[in-house]
Amino acid sequence: MADAARAAILPHFRSVGLTADNKLAGGFDPVTIADRAAETAMRDVLADLRPDDGILGEEHGSVAGTSGLTWVLDPIDGTRSFISGTPTWGVLIALSDDTGPVMGMIDQPYVGERFMGGLGRCNWAGPGRSDTLGTKSTTDLSQAILFSTFPEIGTDAQRQAFQRVTPTVKLTRYGCDCYAYALLAAGQIDLVIEAGLNAYDIQAPIAVIEAAGGVVTQWDGSPAHDGGTALAAATPELHAAALALLNG
Amino acid sequence: MADAARAAILPHFRSVGLTADNKLAGGFDPVTIADRAAETAMRDVLADLRPDDGILGEEHGSVAGTSGLTWVLDPIDGTRSFISGTPTWGVLIALSDDTGPVMGMIDQPYVGERFMGGLGRCNWAGPGRSDTLGTKSTTDLSQAILFSTFPEIGTDAQRQAFQRVTPTVKLTRYGCDCYAYALLAAGQIDLVIEAGLNAYDIQAPIAVIEAAGGVVTQWDGSPAHDGGTALAAATPELHAAALALLNG
Repeated sequence: MADAARAAILPHFRSVGLTADNKLAGGFDPVTIADRAAETAMRDVLADLRPDDGILGEEHGSVAGTSGLTWVLDPIDGTRSFISGTPTWGVLIALSDDTGPVMGMIDQPYVGERFMGGLGRCNWAGPGRSDTLGTKSTTDLSQAILFSTFPEIGTDAQRQAFQRVTPTVKLTRYGCDCYAYALLAAGQIDLVIEAGLNAYDIQAPIAVIEAAGGVVTQWDGSPAHDGGTALAAATPELHAAALALLNG
Repeated sequence: MADAARAAILPHFRSVGLTADNKLAGGFDPVTIADRAAETAMRDVLADLRPDDGILGEEHGSVAGTSGLTWVLDPIDGTRSFISGTPTWGVLIALSDDTGPVMGMIDQPYVGERFMGGLGRCNWAGPGRSDTLGTKSTTDLSQAILFSTFPEIGTDAQRQAFQRVTPTVKLTRYGCDCYAYALLAAGQIDLVIEAGLNAYDIQAPIAVIEAAGGVVTQWDGSPAHDGGTALAAATPELHAAALALLNG
């Protein structure tokens, strides 16, 4: 499915500069085309190989299944990254049962990186290397690298909660969308805090990070797989410390 | 020189997770080692091939030359990106005469992307593709994508000036260091605004963007090649509009 999505998306990445600029005035055409084509390509694979599973996709809605399993698809997570040409958007694929995601993949087609966790998988591969996933052992906020997509995160109250955390960490960085969750699972950063998420934005990251040893919940500690807010941490201790500040 | 820098840096990228986390407590070891090794590797190439040129490097200081030409080197621009594992840091190489940079390169070793402008070059190459550089034709701020490395840009006064621009653009994104200048030259984004720069941070971006048809100055309109602030724009019209707001 990820290979099919790659083939559907890559011809459109960085194609904006090659088309008339005024196409952007009416919406983000290249990314919309790529988004829909990639989800269709993934659904075609499922129709062939897993016709009894359900599907929840960003672009083409829900299909009920009979197997008890549902594929949760976000063909391009990080559309603003995509239209800016940065290589930090991704294809998100999760497989869920009644309890939430049991397997997930974060795929970056342009760089050629793939992060996978769940059902016995816990690994990543990129240009010239591959490795098992594993979160860092950081337990103190003062040693943590924190990522979030926007400094203007969520509502006013959510931004204020987020800003209780940022002064306590070693470094805060912005702008990576789903790629930040992949970096957390690969042991590169320590925290990701976001709000305003849909189920298809977070199910694959949950599976990948949990397989790597990390913790993901909403800001109130409840399960994150239906969307809303997300607090992803490298360790339970770090998760508890950030959770306390978000609710403090 | 860029090939030599790649070979020196890549073994250290994403090595943090493989080493003891407590190494970070005393400083950013892997990036410091990679930074110094890459600059040494580039200086070795120059000693062999261009012994009469001067060198200005971030890590190992200045060497006076006799040719009237100076190589300006930043082996890893975006060290905070590097220690976070994101692929948006870069190797910056510029060649300057008395008037400023005449050629520049922005190289991203992990992705395998190279952007080059000046002395007849104006091209980029990345995974599976290559193209000529060329900035977008955007003239209205309302259609512009703006990048800056941090929302807390520079001094309080600089942040206030920056925040006069952000509400006027279509999209503001953070976190890309030198990679944002490459995206501007490749026709993907429209504006980059930064402060607190050194000469070695900006000389290569200036050459690459000017070769691609863009404009780079300080926020007051003066030459940017000695560092300070930077306003890079896809077109003269967009540059003038942003300059007016920064000084308004």
